[in-house]
Order: sequence, then structure tokens, then C-alpha cells
Amino acid sequence: MNNTIYINTNKNQDLAEKYAQIRKHSEEICKPLATEDYVVQPVDDVSPPKWHLGHTTWFFETFILLPHFPGYQLFNPQFNFVFNSYYETVGARVIRTDRGNLSRPSVAEVYQYRKYVDDNMNRYLTGNSYTAAIEPLLQLGLNHEQQHQELLLTDIKYILGHNPLFPGYKENGTPKYADAAAVKMIAVKEGIYQIGFNGSDFCFDNELGRHKVFLNDFEIADRLVTNGEYLQFMEAGGYSDFRYWHSEGWEWVKQQQVKAPMYWYFIDGKWMHYDFSGLTDIDWNDDVCHVNFFEASAFAAWKGMRLPTEAEWETASEYFNWGRRWEWTNSAYLPYPGYKKEPGAVGEYNGKFMVNQMVLKGASVATPMGHSRKTYRNFFQTHLKWQFTGIRLAR
Amino acid sequence: MNNTIYINTNKNQDLAEKYAQIRKHSEEICKPLATEDYVVQPVDDVSPPKWHLGHTTWFFETFILLPHFPGYQLFNPQFNFVFNSYYETVGARVIRTDRGNLSRPSVAEVYQYRKYVDDNMNRYLTGNSYTAAIEPLLQLGLNHEQQHQELLLTDIKYILGHNPLFPGYKENGTPKYADAAAVKMIAVKEGIYQIGFNGSDFCFDNELGRHKVFLNDFEIADRLVTNGEYLQFMEAGGYSDFRYWHSEGWEWVKQQQVKAPMYWYFIDGKWMHYDFSGLTDIDWNDDVCHVNFFEASAFAAWKGMRLPTEAEWETASEYFNWGRRWEWTNSAYLPYPGYKKEPGAVGEYNGKFMVNQMVLKGASVATPMGHSRKTYRNFFQTHLKWQFTGIRLAR
Amino acid sequence: MNNTIYINTNKNQDLAEKYAQIRKHSEEICKPLATEDYVVQPVDDVSPPKWHLGHTTWFFETFILLPHFPGYQLFNPQFNFVFNSYYETVGARVIRTDRGNLSRPSVAEVYQYRKYVDDNMNRYLTGNSYTAAIEPLLQLGLNHEQQHQELLLTDIKYILGHNPLFPGYKENGTPKYADAAAVKMIAVKEGIYQIGFNGSDFCFDNELGRHKVFLNDFEIADRLVTNGEYLQFMEAGGYSDFRYWHSEGWEWVKQQQVKAPMYWYFIDGKWMHYDFSGLTDIDWNDDVCHVNFFEASAFAAWKGMRLPTEAEWETASEYFNWGRRWEWTNSAYLPYPGYKKEPGAVGEYNGKFMVNQMVLKGASVATPMGHSRKTYRNFFQTHLKWQFTGIRLAR
Amino acid sequence: MNNTIYINTNKNQDLAEKYAQIRKHSEEICKPLATEDYVVQPVDDVSPPKWHLGHTTWFFETFILLPHFPGYQLFNPQFNFVFNSYYETVGARVIRTDRGNLSRPSVAEVYQYRKYVDDNMNRYLTGNSYTAAIEPLLQLGLNHEQQHQELLLTDIKYILGHNPLFPGYKENGTPKYADAAAVKMIAVKEGIYQIGFNGSDFCFDNELGRHKVFLNDFEIADRLVTNGEYLQFMEAGGYSDFRYWHSEGWEWVKQQQVKAPMYWYFIDGKWMHYDFSGLTDIDWNDDVCHVNFFEASAFAAWKGMRLPTEAEWETASEYFNWGRRWEWTNSAYLPYPGYKKEPGAVGEYNGKFMVNQMVLKGASVATPMGHSRKTYRNFFQTHLKWQFTGIRLAR
Repeated sequence: MNNTIYINTNKNQDLAEKYAQIRKHSEEICKPLATEDYVVQPVDDVSPPKWHLGHTTWFFETFILLPHFPGYQLFNPQFNFVFNSYYETVGARVIRTDRGNLSRPSVAEVYQYRKYVDDNMNRYLTGNSYTAAIEPLLQLGLNHEQQHQELLLTDIKYILGHNPLFPGYKENGTPKYADAAAVKMIAVKEGIYQIGFNGSDFCFDNELGRHKVFLNDFEIADRLVTNGEYLQFMEAGGYSDFRYWHSEGWEWVKQQQVKAPMYWYFIDGKWMHYDFSGLTDIDWNDDVCHVNFFEASAFAAWKGMRLPTEAEWETASEYFNWGRRWEWTNSAYLPYPGYKKEPGAVGEYNGKFMVNQMVLKGASVATPMGHSRKTYRNFFQTHLKWQFTGIRLAR
Repeated sequence: MNNTIYINTNKNQDLAEKYAQIRKHSEEICKPLATEDYVVQPVDDVSPPKWHLGHTTWFFETFILLPHFPGYQLFNPQFNFVFNSYYETVGARVIRTDRGNLSRPSVAEVYQYRKYVDDNMNRYLTGNSYTAAIEPLLQLGLNHEQQHQELLLTDIKYILGHNPLFPGYKENGTPKYADAAAVKMIAVKEGIYQIGFNGSDFCFDNELGRHKVFLNDFEIADRLVTNGEYLQFMEAGGYSDFRYWHSEGWEWVKQQQVKAPMYWYFIDGKWMHYDFSGLTDIDWNDDVCHVNFFEASAFAAWKGMRLPTEAEWETASEYFNWGRRWEWTNSAYLPYPGYKKEPGAVGEYNGKFMVNQMVLKGASVATPMGHSRKTYRNFFQTHLKWQFTGIRLAR
Repeated sequence: MNNTIYINTNKNQDLAEKYAQIRKHSEEICKPLATEDYVVQPVDDVSPPKWHLGHTTWFFETFILLPHFPGYQLFNPQFNFVFNSYYETVGARVIRTDRGNLSRPSVAEVYQYRKYVDDNMNRYLTGNSYTAAIEPLLQLGLNHEQQHQELLLTDIKYILGHNPLFPGYKENGTPKYADAAAVKMIAVKEGIYQIGFNGSDFCFDNELGRHKVFLNDFEIADRLVTNGEYLQFMEAGGYSDFRYWHSEGWEWVKQQQVKAPMYWYFIDGKWMHYDFSGLTDIDWNDDVCHVNFFEASAFAAWKGMRLPTEAEWETASEYFNWGRRWEWTNSAYLPYPGYKKEPGAVGEYNGKFMVNQMVLKGASVATPMGHSRKTYRNFFQTHLKWQFTGIRLAR
Repeated sequence: MNNTIYINTNKNQDLAEKYAQIRKHSEEICKPLATEDYVVQPVDDVSPPKWHLGHTTWFFETFILLPHFPGYQLFNPQFNFVFNSYYETVGARVIRTDRGNLSRPSVAEVYQYRKYVDDNMNRYLTGNSYTAAIEPLLQLGLNHEQQHQELLLTDIKYILGHNPLFPGYKENGTPKYADAAAVKMIAVKEGIYQIGFNGSDFCFDNELGRHKVFLNDFEIADRLVTNGEYLQFMEAGGYSDFRYWHSEGWEWVKQQQVKAPMYWYFIDGKWMHYDFSGLTDIDWNDDVCHVNFFEASAFAAWKGMRLPTEAEWETASEYFNWGRRWEWTNSAYLPYPGYKKEPGAVGEYNGKFMVNQMVLKGASVATPMGHSRKTYRNFFQTHLKWQFTGIRLAR
């Protein structure tokens, strides 16, 4: 994981290069796609790739170019309606479940939109209008783009991995894992610890307010749960024994008739899974992936353990490797002490989601380089499993 | 409306040419589309254009080539799963509401599929394996393709006409109408009449069984209701007076908050509508279009009239012009006396839908040439209005 | 079945007695109930018994006493909101699905309401204000009460028969049937026949307009399908073979996982059913009951036959016994030629339901005496089966 | 609020008396009800009063009498199916949404059931079979009964308060409030505090594990938000300004068209509310009631404050009065450090609900005497508002 942050520069040229580099990466992610793959939305939580490409562009246009670059002309005034995600401040928008119904703007038009905005951003960043006061907004826009790079990958996987033809995305040679070593539990002593961001680089507002927490003695695993261990849970009847599940999770299991992680298919007597190369054998030593909070909790209960809290995870994180899976914690996504929403549309970024979601720590194989840190607070609802999510045990 | 039927020939070469001509027309309909337009399914009743192109091809492959052309190899064995519409006889299929979630097969692959099947059909029809016994199946396949040509147009209109950018399909110069003449009522005397098909050309099985019906004296309008007349109904409060509506229709009006035909938009103080050239002014003398059975019935009730029955319509049809709108009747879609489903998958074509739908007579501007006759029994559910449907009054 | 009609009298005293007699019968039906049984609404289509008792009373209060009996004071002005069923003309009302949420008015209050209205009706009918012009309304009110007497029985059966304790309603000694004779088919010749009501007694407006119909040759069974015959259909896999079903019916079978008529339970290796005495053995020679239109059609298709039309049924009805089951026909519920809705609330009685329902002919064991005739047009939606419905075959 | 706990005694006679006293209180709550009021379930979250009476009885029968009282005979073996709430360990059960469909067992039978179980409990507690090892279970059963006493009151209020006739429950003379004093903020210094139960009396398992927490400086209001203050929020447009709401809360407001707390009705130009005496004027100085978490959070945001966490509340609770409203906190309902579910059915009591709910602290006017303590962790989902819930501000 390359944690180098290039953003924090006071040279405009560097900023413009960084901007170009990050923007280009989004397009590279989409290179292997057929035009048709850009369009569909098989479930509400998955957005069409062309929507991601347009929405991240709209962010720069709406929050930077339009208010700050004199003389900027909108590419298309109706795109605000199409590409606004959830900013009530910025007006009406296509409802989220309808994104997959829009054949237009076409993919080509979306790329033209990107080029138009990128050209203007380049002129803006390297010209006289740019002032350092804009940098936080720019950083937010770039980190926002990086978040959508991860979503592009998870959504592409969903679109291709649920197609009955199981088309591959690219032959990326999923790395092979050596035999998983026996898990070791790292012990941490009770005491006052500090969590939250206190650096000078970029972070999201929800990480701010480094603060003290009191932790009891705890132990946390030095590695993630593997596919093989998860299979044991399945074969031990984990999905049919209510005792391991939250009440709401058990309803979910019964109603959806869940039997395995997402992308696992039982074919001709054995479990296979879809990964980006197509339908393939499962590497049993690899970290289990695509489980939701209910499943992560049930697995931990079956093991007689539990999930760590986010404070435990952050405190212990220097003693283990992380970054291959977003790791479910047993902490609800709530504001840190002293958290304040910023005024205006940017204030809608994080705060309004602080209810009925759980925190995930770490990063995943889909997280872009330079976009991970131990204070990062990712969050999803408890039933969702299309992200690259995994399980680390604690007790 | 060109009612000439070319199908009924005993020369193979002619058949092959007719086949090619009809097949080509489907592709011509799709020419103005962007690739993205082929993919989406904004509501359950609308299928993605690429699905129509694949499904009609699958029909020829499944019912003609596979059982009757020795040595035929399937283009792709998984396509049966993707392109079967509702034939339980032929195995599992993608559920109808999921068609818009499939980015693959790509549009290019669907066109390859068409070419592969068309090449084989040409070899089959002009070769030795073809026998006249197959002709009814071939005719069914071609008429099936023509039905989907109309659906292609209605579905394309839905896809583009519900996109917030209102892209045009083609500049086809909607014909302008002279002032609508005052409507005249055609009087028909009571007596025994005959309805149903008795020719030697192709017809669907639901038209068969020409039979006697007893009709009372009735009168039927010589022309369709216009946009201007429908606007009067709207302005007289037709959508807010329950007395004109069926109970089920009234629930639909209230729940959907319906105020106008489909594709009508109230913009800057006036009603406009989407037609294939984009968002345009309404021609008030043109026939009202895109109303459902509930609306057609309510309009008739407001006028103190009623809709004709299918027997009345067919009996009187020689005395008026028809073919621009599918005309709602007040007849439920039920079997004619002596109706028999054919055995096998082909028997699923019509019979199993004979409940809770209403008959529409005539044809529309979207109906392909050579695909209309007065005995045709079109049918849709009472809430649907995305077809080119209109209103003719009776009393 | 006693078909004598007492209604048509010109003596006020007789009318008052008839009124009292019919009103009393509704209360006798409810005698075996516990207070709690009056209150619940296990599914939308079933109304709580106390609602039936109140609603039929509201009908007399609203349409007769209030407009026609000088000085009449409403029992409780809020009862219009509670007991209006579907008359839009008469104002707002509790939505149908909420009837089972109302613990008040209590059962005792409903009986007080009945007594209050009955006392006033008696004074009205035997006093000077009554004029013969009111008689059609009175007859409608009494026939309306009789319709709800049948609904009371079907709804009580649903309430008790779906309770896990299966409480009995009363020990009425279901009559035992002799061995069912082999079915005979009655042949009717093609020709012009007349159907519809033309007597001088009461009938509903939907029966009016006696008119000619042309019928082809047909045959109709002299008796209903028995439980034993229906069991053969079940054991032959009728519920798992799509070929016998309408498309919409097949969806219903799969979604609801239907395996048998309503009230049949498979217990310890044999089929039993709930009848009014509790959970009991099935009499295999008795007429099958509680099947919906989809099941009736599927059974007929399995037999290689069909359901009769309503015109066939009415024409042939003098040649067979009827009255134990409402018999599904293959006729949609549509207006007879010349049908006109009456103005005002009474006009909402029948006409607005003439869409997406099927006609049932005859009467049932739950129909009150004096409330059946061969021209009666009962109607229900195709998925409903809590009425006492049965099957007569035709071909 | 009487916080005396009588439970913890080692004399059987005292236990039996305590049992009798608590059990009697449930029946006293129901005294003002009509039989019909015991039966209905207007929304899923509200259970019929007779179900509460039966379910609490079932708890003693199932967990104490059946396993521990030799020779005990079940009152009715089918009652396990009817009165089990959510204990998967104990077998199948009527689904929660169906409770209001059961007219039987009758109210009289439920009271007989109570008497039968109470008589047996009395014989058991005063006899030789009873051993001190059972006391924790007994205490749990009694506390469980007390929880359902509060639910009885909230559910009765819902049943009567949503009836269009607004019947009163009893004339209990809601106490009048003096003018609300200006709110004072109580300041608490940062540091390590301890929360959780550590007494010797009864508590629920979710309160156990007294543990240290680190708190930052905070301030908390000395009184609850009043109806008058909440009205200001409403009149300032609080329900139409998305900025105060969580994203999920804003969806709820829009979808449900919420405008006020539950039981508030805008009648003839002024706000009134339903309380147990019927539809009455609102005392503007009384604590606001029947708001959900979304509303409590939005109100706090409008005030520029926030809700307290449960640790803050518990730490500061000795400095303010509490007990009239369950007070929403901004803490998710999650396990305390070291929390362990007990084995068997009793272990299903609390742990399996520890997801997607928020903690409420304090008690309410509906909480029975002897059933409140500052460590109590009540919890509900964020959209629910039929409990007696209120708002205390913090910052």
C-alpha cells in the first residue's frame, strides 16, 4: 500500500499534475468495459459506471469551477439534474434508483464532459484565479474521486459478476496466497488511548477531533479470516443456526435464503466464485471477501469471539498488516466528540449519514493508492456486501 | 396502411426474401439508436431494444433451426436463458424485470447472433431440408418479429421520452392534420353478424373460429377522439371526478396522480408532448394517443357514450378509417367459441393471456406494413398506456 | 333453495315485517360469535363482522332515513366515516384495509345503532312519510343486507378457519352426500337465446336489459365437480404443470405456493378441511369449494374441457340443479347492452366494478333464502377463493 | 419515581406476594378497556393487549413452571404457538404482524390462562420445589412483565388514539405544569468515569459490566424540551429544512409527510393532541412527547446543540430530574465491554437486538414503579415514536 500523499503542495503545477493523474486513473479503471457495461444498475446500491464518471466531474464543476473560475460556462445545464448524487443544497436530481434507466447522456458525451471540465480545471489551477483558499475543496474533490474509483471497481464487479454469462473484467492474475499461518492474538493493555486524525494532510471531516478513549484489555487477530475458515462456518451450519445472528440478520438470512458470501456459486458439487477474471476456483487461504456485517458478526459469534471496535482497531493497527479488506467493526458510525458539519453542500458529505450504519476500518484491494490511513472511517449499512469487506476477530 | 400480405407463397426463394426483408426492418428501426439506448429497461413492461433483437432471433433458432435444420449448432447455448421471453416449455429464463440489468451480451454480439441465425435461415429456406409443413411456424416467426417491431418503437419512445434530456429519435416530420371534422355516428342495425378470421393467409390462433354474434342496434364514431377533445375532458376536471371512472381506474388515478396522457408535460403554462422528434407542441387535431383503458372509458363516460365492443368494431370497420391508433374496446380478451391452444411451446403464444386484459382493435402508426387486419385481436392490461392507443366512441 | 320473493308488496305493514325479518337474520348469523370475533380483519378482503352489521345499517340511515324521514337525527355523525364502504358520493371513509384496526365503536354500540335505525325504520315504514316511490331503494337496501349476510358467513369462516385453534362456528351437521353419479353432459343447440332479467320483482341493475345472444352448440355438465375429482387433479400434478394455467394464474400458484383449495390442510398424511364445525374429514362426494377462477380454469383444462360462459349457463340452467356453489364462468363482468348507471350514490353499486372481474352464476349454501335467481350476476377477482365457489364443466 | 426494589428477598412468601402484586398491576392497566380494545393491532409494532397478557404469562409457564415445577400441566399446548414472541429456541410462533388477526383465544380465556398460571406459580413459590437458583429467572420474568406493562400503556394509547372516535382511556387528570423555567446547562469536566450496573439487585444483562469511559468536557440541560419549544421548531420550518436531518430521517419526513409529534392534530386552526383522557389542549410547558430519534436529532441541530451520549447522560444523571420521558441519546445500542449472552432462550432477551437501534435513558410516566434506574438501557429503532419519548439537549 503506497501511503504517500502528493496533494499537499503549494505549487500550482504540481496540483494540476496531481489532478490530471487522479482523474486519469478513473478512466483507466473503465478501459476494459464495453459501452453497455457503463449503463446498467442491477441493484439500487450499484451505480452505472458512466454515472460515477459524470458525478465526480460534476463535483469539480459545481463546487470549484462554477463559483470560483470567472467566466466558466456550464457544459450542459441539465447535467446538474443527472449527476447530483445527494446534495439537497444543489437542487433536484434523478432519484438514485433511476440512474440505470438513463441511456443518455451517452458514454461519449460523458467523456467529453470530463475533458471539458478537466481542460478548464487545468486552466484554472495553472492560472491566476486559483488561490490557496480553494485547496481544501480541491483535496476534497480528489479524495471524492478516489472514493468513486473504489466504487467503480465494486460496481463493475457487481454488474459483470451477476451477469449470467460471467464475463471477465481483466486477467489481473489474482495473487496466490501461501498457506495461511495460524492466527495469533495481539494483546493490548487497558488504558487511555487517542484516536482520530491529527496530521496536516487531507482527511475527511469525520476523522477530525483526535480524542481520548478508554479501552479495556483486549486481543485482536494478526490476520483476517480466510475463505477456508469461512467455509468451515458454512459447513458447520452457520447459516441455519439463529444463535449466531442478530435478530435483524437472521431475518435477512431467511428472507434472502443466503448460504454464502456474495459471488460464491455452488457448481457441480463445489464452491466457486466470480472474481475479475471470471468464474474461478476459490483460493482457500485468501481472505474471505464480500460478507456483510451480519455475516461477520455471526462468524465471530460462532468462533466465540467478537468484532473489534473502531478504537481498538485503530489503536492496534500498527501491529498487524491491513489494507486488503475493509474490516467490519462493531462500532456504529457516529460523530466523534466535537464533530461539526461544515456549512453548505460540502457539509452534507459525511454528517447526515451518521445513523444506522457501521464503521469499517482499513482499506481494500480496490482502494486507490494514496487513499488509505488508519484513521479513515468507512461506513456501510449492515446488510450490504458488494464492497471488498472482510473479518478480523477480537476478544 | 398497406395490407398486402406477401407471406403466402410456395416458392422458397420468395420466402427467403420475405424473411430477409422483415428481419432487416427490425434493424432499420434501431439504426438511430446510440449503443446505450439498446440496454436500458426503465419500467418492467419496456424491454431493452437489444433484448427484442435477440429474442426474435432466438424464436427462429429455437423453434425452426434447432429442431428442423440438420446439423445446426447453437450460436451460444446460454442465450436460451437470456432471450426466452415466457415460454415455460423451453426452460429457465432471466426474469422479465431483470432484462435491463444485463450489459452482456453486447449489442455487437446480438447483431452477430442475428447474422448467424439469418445466414442459417437463408441456407435452410433455400435448401433441401425445408418443407412446406414448416411454413406455419415460419409465418408465426415473421409475424412475431413484426409484433416486436411495434414494441421496439413503443419501447424506444419510452426510453427516450422519459429521459430528462428528451433526445429525439428521428426527425420524421409528424404529419400535420387539417381541422378535425365534426364527428359523425355510423348506425348499424341489430342482427346476426360474423366475426373472426376465415381467410387463407396468416392469422394468429386467437382470431380463428369465425362465428356468429348477435348485435343490438348501435352507433359508432367515424373518427377517433382528438387531442383537443381530450384536453376539454382534462379541463372539465375529468381526472378529479370519480363518477367517470371504474373503481380500479380511480385508485390508479389517485395513486399515480395522473393528470394527462403519457408523454404530455405541462411546461411554462402550456401542455407539450414528447414525440419522436423531441419535446414539441401538440397538434390538437391529431388523434389522442397513449391513454389506457381506464382513461378511454372515463372519457367516453364523460361524453355520455361508451367504448365499442370488439364485435361492433369489427362489424362496422369497413365504414370508417382505422390504423393510426390501437382502439380500446370494452371487450375482455377471452377465447372465441371453439378456441383450442396448440400443443407445445407455440400454444403458449396467446391462450394463456386470456384473462384480465382488454381487446384493442385496428393498428397504429407503429404497426409494420402488412401486419394489420380487421380481425386482429391485440390485448393489454387496463393500466398500460405506452402503446399507441386511442379512443373511438360508441353508443 | 327457496326462491319465493316476499318483497314486492304494497302494504306497509308487510314491508315493515319483511324489513324486520331480514334484519334479524343478520343478527342470528352472528349469534354464535364471541365479541372478539366481530373485530378482526385477517386479510383485506374480509371485513370484521361488526363492520358488516354497521355498514348495512348505515345504508338505511344514509339513503332512506336521513333524506326521507322528516326530523330524523343521526345516531352518531362520525359513523358515516366508519361505515361507508365505497361510496365516493357520500364522503370520506376509513380505508378498507384499516377496518380491523378499529376497536370502537364496540359491538354493543353497533347493536344499539342497529336498534335505533330499526326502530326509526319501523316508524317510517308504518307511518305517513313513507311513499311507494321509496320502495326500490328499500328493496335495494334489503338485498344489500342479504348480500352482506353471505359475506358475514364467508368472512366468519375465514376468521375462524385461519385461527391456529380452529374454533367451530356451529355444529350444523354438514349434510352427507350419496355417491356422486357419473356426470352427464347436457347438449344445447346453437341459436339465438335471451338472457337478463325481465320480471317485475327486484333485481340489480346489472341484470337489466334482457337481450338476445347467439350461442353455438355446447354441452354443460349436470352436476358440479366433486372434492374427489379435484383431488385427482391435485394428485395428477395439476398444481405443478404450467400447461393448465393462465400465465397470471401460474404466477399466483408459484408465488403463493398453492397446493389445494382454501381450508384444506394436509395433516398426518391425509387431507382434511376446516368447515363450520371445525377441522374435519372431507366428504369426497361433496362439491369442491373455495377454488378461485385460476384453479377452476386449470381443472377444466386438465379435463380437456372449459368453463361455461354466463349466457350458456343461464340458458341451460333449467336443466340442472344449482344453488350450492357460486359457479365460475369464463365471462368477464361487463355491462349488458344498454346498461346505464343510475345517478347518485346508488349508481356506484355495480357499474364501477365492471373491469377485471369474472362472473359467477347461481348461488351458494351461504346465500340467504329468497336471494337467488338465474339472472343473478355475482362477480369476483380471479385470485379470490374465500367465497363458496365451485366448478361446472362445459365443452 | 419510586425506585425501591422489593424483589431481592429470600423469603418465599414475600416472593409470592411480590409476584401477585406485579401480575395484578398488568390486569389493572387493562380494566378500563372494552373487550374489543384487547384484540386489534393497528400497526406491526403495537401488539393487542390480550397478547401482552398472554405472552407474559407464557413466559412464566415456559421458563419456570414447565421445566421446574414437577407435574405441571400446560394450560393449552397450542398457546406456545400463539404467545411466543421472538424466542427461536422455543419453537414456531405466530408472526408478529398477524397477532391482530387472532380473535381466539378470547379475552376471557386469556384471563383464565393467567389465573391458572398464577395459581400454579403461587403453589410453586410457596412450596418445596422452589429453590433460590430459580430467583434470577423469576426476577427476569417479573421485570419482563413490567416492561410489558409499559408496552400495554403505549399500545393502548396507540389503539385508542388512532381511532377516529378518539375514545378516552381514563380521566387521570394529566398534571398541569408550571411555567417552564429557563433551561440551565450543567457542565461536566473531562475525565474517566464509570458506567454500567454494579449493584446486587436485579438488572438486565445488557447493563452489566460496569466499566470505565473517557468523557470530554460537556454540558447537559437540566430539563427536557417542552411542547412550546418544539412548536417553535415546527413554526420555524423545522420539518421542511433538510439541513437539520439525517439523510434517512429526511426520507422518512418526506415519505410520511410528517409535520408534528405523534398524537398531535391540527384542528380548526390550532394544535391539539390525544392523551389518555381523549382529544385535549396541549400544555405547552409540559415535556414534548412521542418524537422519534430523527426528530430529536433535528430539533437539537436546529438549536445548535446535540443529543447526549448514554455515558454522558448516566454520568450527569444525578444532577437533574428524570423519569417522565425516555430520553433519546446519540449512542447506538451496542454491547458493553465483556458482554456475554447467556445460553438458551433467556440469552435471546437483549443481545440479538444490538444493531441499528439507539439507546434511550431514564424512564417515562408509563414505566411501572420500581422498574427504573440510571443504568437502564432502553432501545428502539430510529423511526419509532409511539413510546413516551422526549428530548434533553447537550453540547
